[in-house]
Amino acid sequence: VFRSESDLIERYFCELGAPRTDVALGIGDDAALLRPAAGYELALTTDALIEGVHFLQGAPARSLGHRALAVNLSDIAAMGAAPCWALLSLNLPLLDEAWLADFADGFGALARAHGVALVGGNLSRGALCITVALAGQVPAASALRRDGARPGDALYVSGCLGDAAAGLAQLRADEQSHGVGSQSAVEQYLRARFEYPTPRVALGQALRGVASACIDLSDGLYGDLGRLLQASACGAQLETEALPLSAALRSRLGTGAWQAALSGGEDYELCFSVPIDRTTRLEAIAAQSGEALTRIGTVRSEGGIALMQAKEVIQFSPSSFDHFRH
Amino acid sequence: VFRSESDLIERYFCELGAPRTDVALGIGDDAALLRPAAGYELALTTDALIEGVHFLQGAPARSLGHRALAVNLSDIAAMGAAPCWALLSLNLPLLDEAWLADFADGFGALARAHGVALVGGNLSRGALCITVALAGQVPAASALRRDGARPGDALYVSGCLGDAAAGLAQLRADEQSHGVGSQSAVEQYLRARFEYPTPRVALGQALRGVASACIDLSDGLYGDLGRLLQASACGAQLETEALPLSAALRSRLGTGAWQAALSGGEDYELCFSVPIDRTTRLEAIAAQSGEALTRIGTVRSEGGIALMQAKEVIQFSPSSFDHFRH
Repeated sequence: VFRSESDLIERYFCELGAPRTDVALGIGDDAALLRPAAGYELALTTDALIEGVHFLQGAPARSLGHRALAVNLSDIAAMGAAPCWALLSLNLPLLDEAWLADFADGFGALARAHGVALVGGNLSRGALCITVALAGQVPAASALRRDGARPGDALYVSGCLGDAAAGLAQLRADEQSHGVGSQSAVEQYLRARFEYPTPRVALGQALRGVASACIDLSDGLYGDLGRLLQASACGAQLETEALPLSAALRSRLGTGAWQAALSGGEDYELCFSVPIDRTTRLEAIAAQSGEALTRIGTVRSEGGIALMQAKEVIQFSPSSFDHFRH
Repeated sequence: VFRSESDLIERYFCELGAPRTDVALGIGDDAALLRPAAGYELALTTDALIEGVHFLQGAPARSLGHRALAVNLSDIAAMGAAPCWALLSLNLPLLDEAWLADFADGFGALARAHGVALVGGNLSRGALCITVALAGQVPAASALRRDGARPGDALYVSGCLGDAAAGLAQLRADEQSHGVGSQSAVEQYLRARFEYPTPRVALGQALRGVASACIDLSDGLYGDLGRLLQASACGAQLETEALPLSAALRSRLGTGAWQAALSGGEDYELCFSVPIDRTTRLEAIAAQSGEALTRIGTVRSEGGIALMQAKEVIQFSPSSFDHFRH
């Protein structure tokens, strides 16, 4: 059955996100109308997923719906803000209602889990591309920025690193061999870490007043930490033995797992610095939230990232993701 | 010279928009931080331009920069809001710095003209597509919506209608004949109306408290007015002789010009309803703003749009733009 753009939006997207009392007017007018909370700043971000660049052709629609929102939630989390209102621009090469339904399921479940209302967007014909803009709110002057790290601060990451890159590598290998066959538990875990990343939204908010700087890990720890340090005009010493690695990644990559943890992208974990006199408060946050937080090194005044292994400085050549480099 | 994504963003986009004192943190962190004004609502919208759908292959980059922002400014204008903060997602098939510079010129000039700060975005490899999200502000409970028209209200449009569709038709014809040659003043005018539409930002704000409903004309008057009337649970009588037509459109299309004015898209004029007892205030707005405002009909309780010509109801089959219909 043919449906027009507005019919499709009505059917799949109008009631998709969380209901919020601060939405005065949602989908259906020229713009949404929202009521910002007094005393808060607005955090605004956008990120896009493009077929062939950020995901493989034929990627499951449910995963794409999840990831398109997750990568933006991760940006809002890294600011210590609470996500509120999302806009969705969806370019589709053809209309496939089963695809749309799965996409909406993935997007909607994550939106509702984080209290995000979908308040607008558009649907067009075009090469498959999903662009989300997301607005969050954070108490004035308390957002986590990249530029607050100071020498002596302890450096932490959430979760495990490198899993998503290993999951993507496996999906690429499956694509080359034209089929997946039965998957081991390790394969399923790594693939899920790429296809369904967990943005650390509650953690980001808990870190307000504790972390001195924060960034989310989309391009790999080495590159993203480098950005945080550059913004803070500092450097760091990193202990490669301290990098948090999943059992799955270790079983897949063996002794090379730490390199995937350093350079692999798409993890959407948080990397943050904490002044030493606040690390006790951080332990309380870790205990309350149940999030695994790992100290991986220390900020120092000397620029650059010094990688330590067995107490020696080692060399490492990262290949941080840059869309125009490959 | 090769440049990375962040180098390019730094070079072309960091200082592009208007400076605003309510931007606490602009491009360069995980999200921008903005300070909403107390007592205002936030108006949030997004719209995308896709090559082959919303513009022809080889369209001038400066026009694309202008239009990508203009179509969003028009949505914010239709709400009666003041535009404030923009996000830009740019998908490019290849890096062309001359293209980027022209694009930034077109986007930047319009942003500065309307006091809009560019506060974030991303640059990716992909089929040419430009997605802008735009946030504006409007005093609480005073936004112009689509659902406020009432029987008896007068219907108005700004500017002239149909020019952009005629301009696009001419660009298509030029493309077919592989070249433009010298262009007449009529051709230049129509082409500019498509490539550089003027969003009616000041008018939208002036209409607060005067218009009972408002919509911007992106898909053609017949279709967009139909949406306003449907949201308001009304219909309208429209005088085809009253439709505002430019001399250029008349010279190009002759007696068929009114049909282009009814069904042609991409005009980005405002269509709005005004209660009869406020039409005097509207005349004052027109005089102060210098905007041409034309009364084209009257809202009535009976549903649908009745088209009048020489005092008779005529039949008309619109072809309102729908991305999945052609």
